[in-house]
Amino acid sequence: MEAYFDNSATTRCYDEVREIMDLTMLRDYGNPSSMHRKGVESEKYIREAARTLAGILKADAREIYFTSGGTESDNWALFGTAMARGRKGKHIIISSIEHPAVTAPAAALEEMGYEVTRLSVEKDGRISLNELEEAIREDTILVSLMAVNNEIGTVEPVREAGELIKKKNPSCYFHVDAIQAFGKLPVYPGRMNIDLMSASSHKIHGPKGVGFLYIGNKVKIRPLIFGGGQQNDMRSGTDNVPGIAGMAKAAEIVCGNMAENAEKMYTLKEHLADGLLKLGDVCIHGMSLREGAPHILNASFIGIRSEVLLHALEDKGIYVSAGSACSTHKRTGSPTLTAIGCSKKEMESAVRFSFSEENTIGQVDYTLEVLNEIVPMLRRYTRR
Amino acid sequence: MEAYFDNSATTRCYDEVREIMDLTMLRDYGNPSSMHRKGVESEKYIREAARTLAGILKADAREIYFTSGGTESDNWALFGTAMARGRKGKHIIISSIEHPAVTAPAAALEEMGYEVTRLSVEKDGRISLNELEEAIREDTILVSLMAVNNEIGTVEPVREAGELIKKKNPSCYFHVDAIQAFGKLPVYPGRMNIDLMSASSHKIHGPKGVGFLYIGNKVKIRPLIFGGGQQNDMRSGTDNVPGIAGMAKAAEIVCGNMAENAEKMYTLKEHLADGLLKLGDVCIHGMSLREGAPHILNASFIGIRSEVLLHALEDKGIYVSAGSACSTHKRTGSPTLTAIGCSKKEMESAVRFSFSEENTIGQVDYTLEVLNEIVPMLRRYTRR
Repeated sequence: MEAYFDNSATTRCYDEVREIMDLTMLRDYGNPSSMHRKGVESEKYIREAARTLAGILKADAREIYFTSGGTESDNWALFGTAMARGRKGKHIIISSIEHPAVTAPAAALEEMGYEVTRLSVEKDGRISLNELEEAIREDTILVSLMAVNNEIGTVEPVREAGELIKKKNPSCYFHVDAIQAFGKLPVYPGRMNIDLMSASSHKIHGPKGVGFLYIGNKVKIRPLIFGGGQQNDMRSGTDNVPGIAGMAKAAEIVCGNMAENAEKMYTLKEHLADGLLKLGDVCIHGMSLREGAPHILNASFIGIRSEVLLHALEDKGIYVSAGSACSTHKRTGSPTLTAIGCSKKEMESAVRFSFSEENTIGQVDYTLEVLNEIVPMLRRYTRR
Repeated sequence: MEAYFDNSATTRCYDEVREIMDLTMLRDYGNPSSMHRKGVESEKYIREAARTLAGILKADAREIYFTSGGTESDNWALFGTAMARGRKGKHIIISSIEHPAVTAPAAALEEMGYEVTRLSVEKDGRISLNELEEAIREDTILVSLMAVNNEIGTVEPVREAGELIKKKNPSCYFHVDAIQAFGKLPVYPGRMNIDLMSASSHKIHGPKGVGFLYIGNKVKIRPLIFGGGQQNDMRSGTDNVPGIAGMAKAAEIVCGNMAENAEKMYTLKEHLADGLLKLGDVCIHGMSLREGAPHILNASFIGIRSEVLLHALEDKGIYVSAGSACSTHKRTGSPTLTAIGCSKKEMESAVRFSFSEENTIGQVDYTLEVLNEIVPMLRRYTRR
C-alpha cells in the first residue's frame, strides 16, 4: 500500500487539471497578448480563471493577479508594499511562525532600513491579538500573517486581526499568506479586511509554478517584475496560460467540496491522532484537532529522529515530512516548533503528516500498523 | 489551411514536452525539497534538466537557475546586479531596442538613482561597438544587450561586445537577453564573456511560465525572490518540476536540430521575402535576410495599417503579429522601429512574421497567395 501524507509539501495534479493544461499547450497555445484569434482564445482561459478564483473568494476578477507561485506572491506583497509605501512608514509586523517566503523578504527589508516586529505565539501557535494591537503604530505599513501554519496547522485569528488592524491604523495594509488555507478553509478577503492574499496552485492539486496574489481594488503596491505590461502592468511576462487554467480548475474542484473534504480530513486526522497517542511517548503539536487545519498533524515521536522515522516509513510506502519541505534540505531547527516552545527532544523527533481528500482511512490504518511495528523497534535501537 | 507565423510571440508545445509534464504532474509529482523518495525522484528531473541545458550552453549545471520565464530572468539580471553591486557603481548600459523586460527594470533603476545609457542602433538594428566602448566607464556595473531583437530579428554582435566590455572594464557584468536567440543560434556564455543570460521556454515549444537565467560561477548577484532557499538560496519557491522538465525536453529537441532548423527557416524567410517584394510598396526591416535571425521577418505594407492586415490575414487562418505581442495591447509606436529610423508610414504598417521549424513552404505559398489577393484590395480601400 502507498500512503502519501505529504500534501502540504505538494499534491498530485487532478486529471482534469492535466486535461485543460494539455489543451492550452497543444491546441489553444496562443499568447494572450497577441491580437489575433489565437491570442484572444488564449486570453479567455485567463479571464475565466480570474473569474473562477474571484468567485471562490467573493472578490472582483480584477483583484486576482497571477504569479509563479506562493513564494513570489509573498515576496511581492512584502516588497511591493514596502516600495510603494516606504515614505509613509517603515514598520512591518509579522508573526514568529511565518513561512520563509515571508520571513526572508522581511529580513531583506530590515537590511534596507525597515523595522520588523515579530509577534510571539502561544503554545498552540496562535498569535496574541493584544500583542498585535500594541505592536501597530502610526508608521506601520503592513501586517503579514499566515492563515494556516504550514508545519503544525494552527489556524490564526485572521478575521479578528483584520478588524483590529483597521481599527488601530486604517491605512496599514493586511497581507494574509493563505497558501496552506486556500482550498481547505473559507477565506474571504473583502469580509476579513484583507488587502493582499497569497495562494499557491500545487498545494491544491494544481500544477507547480503558478499561484496568485489577491490585491484589493483600492490597494496600491509596486510591481516586483516589470516588462511588457501584462496583468494591468502589475506583473509582466507572458501569462502562464496552462498553469493558470490548471490552477483555476483545481480550485474549482477542491473548493466545490471544501466542507466535505475538510470533514473527511478531520476524520483521518482524528483517527491518526488516536492511534499515535496509543503508541506512547508521542506528543501532538498545535491546536486541538478540530480547531486546527483539517489537513495537518504534527507529532513528535520522542527518542526517534525525524529523518530516521521518515525513511523507515518511506520503506513501507508512507510519505511524510520532517519539518517543512519548503525549507529545502536545511538542518536548522524549525522556527515554528521553536516559537511554540518545543523542547530539543520534541524538535528532533517531529514529523508532519499532511492529508488531501484523496487519502483514505485504510491508508491511516496501514500507517498505524506500520508505526506500531517500527516505533518500538526504532526506540530500542536509538536508546541503546 | 492554417499558417501560424507568430512563433516569436509563443509556440505550440511539442508532444514530448506534454508527455514529460504529464508524468511529473501525475506520477512523479513529489516536491523536490522533500526528503523522501518522491522528493528525490522529482529532484532528478530538475538535475537532469540543468544538465541538459548546461550541455547545450557548454556550461556547468550549477550555472543554470530556473525562473518563471524570460521576463523574470531579465528582471533578476538587472535588479540582482544593481542590488549586489550598487556600491561599486550605478551606471548601466543597454541598447535602445531592448525588450520591455529589460527597459522597464532599467527605468525603475533610474528612478532609484542609477544612471542608464541607451546605445543607439544602425538602420539594421545593430549597436555600434565604438559607441559601446565609449560608453563603458569605471562605474559601469552592467551592460545588457539582446542577442536577437524580437521585432526585426537583428543579430547583435554579442561576442565582440563581450570582448570589448571585459577589455575596457573587467569587473563590469555582461547580461545577454537570449530569449529570441536560444534554440535558434548557438550561444556559449563561457566563450562569449557572458556573465548572465536569459532564456525562455515557450519560445522553443516548451511550456509557458518557465525560463532560466544562466549565472556564471564567479558572478555574484542578489536574489529577486527570497524564501525556502531552493536553487542554492538564489531563487526560492517550490521548483516548477513539470515546467522545468518540459523546457529541458523542448531545448533538447530544438537544439538537437539547430543548424537544420535554421536552414529550413531561412528558406521560408527568403521565399516569403521574395514574394513580399513582388507585391510592391513593401519594405523589409532589419539586416539582410541571411545575416538576421532565421525566424523573424518584419515588413511594412505601406498604406495598410498593421492591425487591418493582421485581421484580414487571421480571417484566412494566417497568424502574424503587429509589432511585438509582448507589449500587450499597447498602441504606442514600436521602440525598435523608432530606433532604426522608420517613418510613421512604415511603423503604422509593420507586420512581423515569425517562423518555427514546424512551418512549411506550402504555408508560405498560401500566405503569398492570400497577400496577393488582399493587399491590393486593402490598399484600394484605404487610399480612397
